[in-house]
Amino acid sequence: MDYLNVKFKETGHSNMYFPQFIPYSFIEKEASHVQGFSPELAVVTIGGGKELEEKLVVRPTSETIVNHMFTKWIQSYRDLPLMINQWANVTRWEMRTKPFIRTLEFLWQEGHTAHATLEEAEKEAMQMIDVYTKFAYEQAAIPVIPGRKSRVETFAGADRTYTIEAMMGDKKALQAGTSHNLGQNFSRAFETQFMDENGQLEHVWQTSWAISTRFVGGIIMTHGDDAGLMLPPRIAPIQVVIVPIWKKGDEKGVVMEAVASVQNTLKEAGIRVKMDDSELRTPGWKFNFYEMKGVPIRIELGPRDVKNRSVVLCRRDVPGKQGKEFGISMEPSILVDHIKGRLEEIQASLLQKAITFRDSNIVDVNSYGELKEVISEGKWARGPWSASDADELKVKEETSATIRCFPFDQPEGAKKCFMTGNPADEVAIFAKSY
Amino acid sequence: MDYLNVKFKETGHSNMYFPQFIPYSFIEKEASHVQGFSPELAVVTIGGGKELEEKLVVRPTSETIVNHMFTKWIQSYRDLPLMINQWANVTRWEMRTKPFIRTLEFLWQEGHTAHATLEEAEKEAMQMIDVYTKFAYEQAAIPVIPGRKSRVETFAGADRTYTIEAMMGDKKALQAGTSHNLGQNFSRAFETQFMDENGQLEHVWQTSWAISTRFVGGIIMTHGDDAGLMLPPRIAPIQVVIVPIWKKGDEKGVVMEAVASVQNTLKEAGIRVKMDDSELRTPGWKFNFYEMKGVPIRIELGPRDVKNRSVVLCRRDVPGKQGKEFGISMEPSILVDHIKGRLEEIQASLLQKAITFRDSNIVDVNSYGELKEVISEGKWARGPWSASDADELKVKEETSATIRCFPFDQPEGAKKCFMTGNPADEVAIFAKSY
Repeated sequence: MDYLNVKFKETGHSNMYFPQFIPYSFIEKEASHVQGFSPELAVVTIGGGKELEEKLVVRPTSETIVNHMFTKWIQSYRDLPLMINQWANVTRWEMRTKPFIRTLEFLWQEGHTAHATLEEAEKEAMQMIDVYTKFAYEQAAIPVIPGRKSRVETFAGADRTYTIEAMMGDKKALQAGTSHNLGQNFSRAFETQFMDENGQLEHVWQTSWAISTRFVGGIIMTHGDDAGLMLPPRIAPIQVVIVPIWKKGDEKGVVMEAVASVQNTLKEAGIRVKMDDSELRTPGWKFNFYEMKGVPIRIELGPRDVKNRSVVLCRRDVPGKQGKEFGISMEPSILVDHIKGRLEEIQASLLQKAITFRDSNIVDVNSYGELKEVISEGKWARGPWSASDADELKVKEETSATIRCFPFDQPEGAKKCFMTGNPADEVAIFAKSY
Repeated sequence: MDYLNVKFKETGHSNMYFPQFIPYSFIEKEASHVQGFSPELAVVTIGGGKELEEKLVVRPTSETIVNHMFTKWIQSYRDLPLMINQWANVTRWEMRTKPFIRTLEFLWQEGHTAHATLEEAEKEAMQMIDVYTKFAYEQAAIPVIPGRKSRVETFAGADRTYTIEAMMGDKKALQAGTSHNLGQNFSRAFETQFMDENGQLEHVWQTSWAISTRFVGGIIMTHGDDAGLMLPPRIAPIQVVIVPIWKKGDEKGVVMEAVASVQNTLKEAGIRVKMDDSELRTPGWKFNFYEMKGVPIRIELGPRDVKNRSVVLCRRDVPGKQGKEFGISMEPSILVDHIKGRLEEIQASLLQKAITFRDSNIVDVNSYGELKEVISEGKWARGPWSASDADELKVKEETSATIRCFPFDQPEGAKKCFMTGNPADEVAIFAKSY
């Protein structure tokens, strides 16, 4: 949230907050929007003890209420672009839920912008999917594939949907963030108009874009293992945990003194450090607990380490003895440099591991038969595609795989659709997904 | 949010998020809680197109669902204290709304803690009202009065409620934040129990505490004037706005070069600065706009200033010419020092002004007659009080004033209740409120 908030502001957006209860009539205004969302709505019918005259929808997304307000705020080209972001909870009535990935209520940010031209809106939609892509790579160490959704998979009410698709540890795809070029669909439905420089009334061109707590699930399922979470250092709330170890009563004093000094050194260096000196739990219990929590580095510090003026360091991402380093000097400048280096190393290593895993599980296909085989192995299939929406739905029905995206990064050369044999401009990526 | 988040973590709390839909049966479990909140509930009766078997309440506050989860998480004294915070929206069906102050939906943080002893819970409740008090004084420049609520005004389900009370520009009181010692009321209703060190099952002792977007209204109504907002520098999203001024085409280049340099200097010094170079609006329009937005300092920079290597500085809190300073050197170290000094001066001045206003509008009373007179003048009355709940309700009915709090800061010496003449331990503050 902190990282994205800064990026959103740098790219010219202001945070706002809109009411979460939306009159049902708003939802009905944009035809494909109501069709897409009406089966998933939670509806408030009673307020303050009374039956309501107009039912209120608990927001599934805010395009409608945002446009209602934009209509009041936008009069002239001088009011454009209008670029806002909202951090909020949203509700979609899901029958089959899965923690973080598909929940009845979830947290997200939703950006909403209005522009004077189609080109500006398109540029904005692309800019924001790029912000998400960088966030995924640089912070979460998730090598997402950015691209465009197929018509079938486009957001209800959008002209174009851009997406970042991530490969989870079980090789299923996760749609981890989306950015929509809404064209004039909502502005026509809501009459969101502006007077241009020539005095002509025009409908605004809009975008919306969102990333949600689902991304947290993406982090867990990209890097986690059987011992629990494994958090990339840049986003880990705790980067280093210090576990003091002592047995006899008179050991405690010297150990705790050294521990406090190490903790202070790391804290002053801007490292997010936690020290757990609880006497209610054993060191072994704490090792497991902070492994499960995904803390990238554990420091162990006992009486012998105090004597040697050194600490023991354990990496969460390298299991067993290989991830253990003994005799790392307590001398502040050495220790800080060493740990900062290790944190960067872990960050890079998690990303590299995920890239290798991803690339070894995407297979180029040139026929529907090949696609079926690749999908049945649980992998992702990539192949030229220019077939119909009906063909796309047939693939889904027969293989459970959908087009995740037409990736921005396209192979060069002439291509033939693997389904129809017709010329194809692009390859698409097919996969089973969450 | 940023400031409080840091303070909450420093005092040992973790952020969590709980579902906003609460089964109606949860709300019913704590008798005074359901009585307090049931008239204000929004109720979801339809989900995913179907009538729900159990109605869901849109959270008015989260004590019930938090206790439902605490019951699963707390087994032993080793699990205590459990200290969490949630940033969330809440809904209370208000018939008479007022922007920021009383809205059907609002944003807040709600802290919830569970402890092994009453003493620990009491200490926590006091600690958090102290965090709020410091936040109000040091960040928002609002000289709140912290104290204890009367029984009548205590939160539905709490043993004790602590509050910070602020005097608005119209002298009405605003309850700006509260902290509750919940005793064992919810833990008994939900059977939230733990095994103590002697193997005995005990109910946990709890607190909850909250501050909301209402506080934003408090900032507006404490410092604002007829020209709009006046934001204390420490919490102003924009601390300095730079408005470039030029007329002829060839002036633009030199002005914009100087403006960019000044902007950069301030930004690098950690000052939150915005430069508005829009050619769609005049400088005069911009002056009014950023005054309305409450930006503490405006810098004007035209061709003559460029020649003199200086800028013009205008303080939002000092109207007219008195707030204008000419010829402030552009030399980075001088400019930065000058502006940082002025920002601190504005922060201190806003607080001092609010303290003077508050203290000149609180009047000590020694009889009900005096109280009536003071309240009818729109001021706050302070007097010894040990009368009954019925007497308190009578004062409310006859004067519209309520007990805002028994302030922590009490005058010394023996006191007699101004209503009954009986001995009184404390003075209470009475006022009309939002």
